[in-house]
Amino acid sequence: MKIAILGMGAVGRGVLELVDGKDLGLTVTGLADSKSGLMDKDGIHIEEVLAAKQERGYCGDKSISATDIVEQADYDVLIEVTPTDAKTGEPATGFIRKAIARGNHVVTSNKGPIALHYAALQSLARKHRVSIRYEATVGGAIPVMHTLQHGLAGNRVLAIFGILNGTCNFILTRMAAEGLTYDQALLEAREMGYAEADPTYDVKGIDAAIKLVILSNTIWKRNVKLDDVEITGIDMLTTDALRLAEEQHCTIRLIAEAVPDRGVLRVAPRVLPKNHPLVVEGSLNAITIETDMAGEITLIGKGAGSRETASAIIGDVLFIRETHARGH
Amino acid sequence: MKIAILGMGAVGRGVLELVDGKDLGLTVTGLADSKSGLMDKDGIHIEEVLAAKQERGYCGDKSISATDIVEQADYDVLIEVTPTDAKTGEPATGFIRKAIARGNHVVTSNKGPIALHYAALQSLARKHRVSIRYEATVGGAIPVMHTLQHGLAGNRVLAIFGILNGTCNFILTRMAAEGLTYDQALLEAREMGYAEADPTYDVKGIDAAIKLVILSNTIWKRNVKLDDVEITGIDMLTTDALRLAEEQHCTIRLIAEAVPDRGVLRVAPRVLPKNHPLVVEGSLNAITIETDMAGEITLIGKGAGSRETASAIIGDVLFIRETHARGH
Repeated sequence: MKIAILGMGAVGRGVLELVDGKDLGLTVTGLADSKSGLMDKDGIHIEEVLAAKQERGYCGDKSISATDIVEQADYDVLIEVTPTDAKTGEPATGFIRKAIARGNHVVTSNKGPIALHYAALQSLARKHRVSIRYEATVGGAIPVMHTLQHGLAGNRVLAIFGILNGTCNFILTRMAAEGLTYDQALLEAREMGYAEADPTYDVKGIDAAIKLVILSNTIWKRNVKLDDVEITGIDMLTTDALRLAEEQHCTIRLIAEAVPDRGVLRVAPRVLPKNHPLVVEGSLNAITIETDMAGEITLIGKGAGSRETASAIIGDVLFIRETHARGH
Repeated sequence: MKIAILGMGAVGRGVLELVDGKDLGLTVTGLADSKSGLMDKDGIHIEEVLAAKQERGYCGDKSISATDIVEQADYDVLIEVTPTDAKTGEPATGFIRKAIARGNHVVTSNKGPIALHYAALQSLARKHRVSIRYEATVGGAIPVMHTLQHGLAGNRVLAIFGILNGTCNFILTRMAAEGLTYDQALLEAREMGYAEADPTYDVKGIDAAIKLVILSNTIWKRNVKLDDVEITGIDMLTTDALRLAEEQHCTIRLIAEAVPDRGVLRVAPRVLPKNHPLVVEGSLNAITIETDMAGEITLIGKGAGSRETASAIIGDVLFIRETHARGH
């Protein structure tokens, strides 16, 4: 199966390394970063490209753009892993639309297009009889979309509760374990590479809320938006609040929850018993899916990391190959 | 899609109730219990059949056998939910072979055929271009097979660790929480309906070992047998052992583990830190899958129950419909 990859950040490079290192039957026929592109219908030499990127900072020919790759390369699946723009979803959404319109499948880790344009993109994909998959947008390596769409098929999902942001979970774990203040724990998260220089997006609960929007629209097809989510971050949490929770054998976690029957769509710090399945440590993510038949199913795993995100992308590509090879 | 169901115990009735109560597009065209059978290519009236079974103890016509249903009914998928015989796998294995040979898909919750004859049944299914699925055999409602086969596709599974028997987990949870002896906790488990009158199969670790065999053969295609598993049950565990674990902020759980690279295939009580993701309470099940790309993924959910098991079966049926509708 032929794939084209847009984006050579940590995730794009992770995908290239997996395709190169594993015998998955995947050939990379197109590739673009923000400055250049290259295509070869017989397969790009991955090691050479990774070395070139490392050495000179771009991967291919500066006269070839990402749009050229989407429109001209010979591929079955577009892997769209450019940076997320949570406000506009561009340029990723444009790339995805063009790929679908050419009759190609799309796999993305980009939260922007899926959080903002889910219904329109799914509708376009149905029209062109292709798949758009986005396992990597929520919960990193945790196959939550597969579980919702296939593993729990036939179930009605009543509610979801999740720890969807590893940065916040790391900070809260450290505050509880060591009695650190929020600022101390944030500093440690930065030093460990779990928090960005500007952590607003994570600690204010926005990243978790975007993922909650993606989950909600996947499950309930309701077309909710980020503005519909009631959001409280963790940046005002005190050491005292955590100590009080500890005294009751509880702890505090930033929980994203959606319960449509009660009108709940919210991200907020919540007190949970320490032995609650959702209470995971460090930068882990966890998602509980409450259903009418299967009861509560909880999934736990690494919520970030280039290799873990690449794993989710490869899983989507292989699923498309398996399901579409049979028919169209 | 037309389904035939063999077995009208708790699981068979659970499937019938779901098919009747939900608009899943499934029609039951054949049905058998141990004493009788019935078939109707236009669809059996489920409520009538459930009432008849309740009233007189059998579902259909005593001159029609389960074999008649397998061989003569008009169905796409056979749902095989007769009682497990862990020594011979019969009569279930015979039913499954006949259904596959007729070109029908099979979904089963029966551990016998899968633990004993996995490779042969898969080979037969491939020959006839049909699917055999068995999500319900391990972990009840937890979609572990879907996760292994699809969600984590492309990953190499390095190891699995699981709490695969809810009876043992309930007993251990109660021993730790209340300082009960093994005998006291077992009595409570019986009273709550979590343990059978003869609990040997559960408390000696045999049930967990059979599930470990099924998982191992699914993941690594190694064709291991129950005899290959090193098994220690929980029936010799003392209250003292649990108290010692508690003193170190740990607890004891019956863990099934397979690590092929180290030659490990074992069911045994293990001391785990209380905040370990696998440490779940009561009759829950939990499975950690260790992979080369996605890291460790843990799944938690109800390991038993007629509705939960029926959920896993329905998920398999719908997956077969989705994947096979496209092509053959």
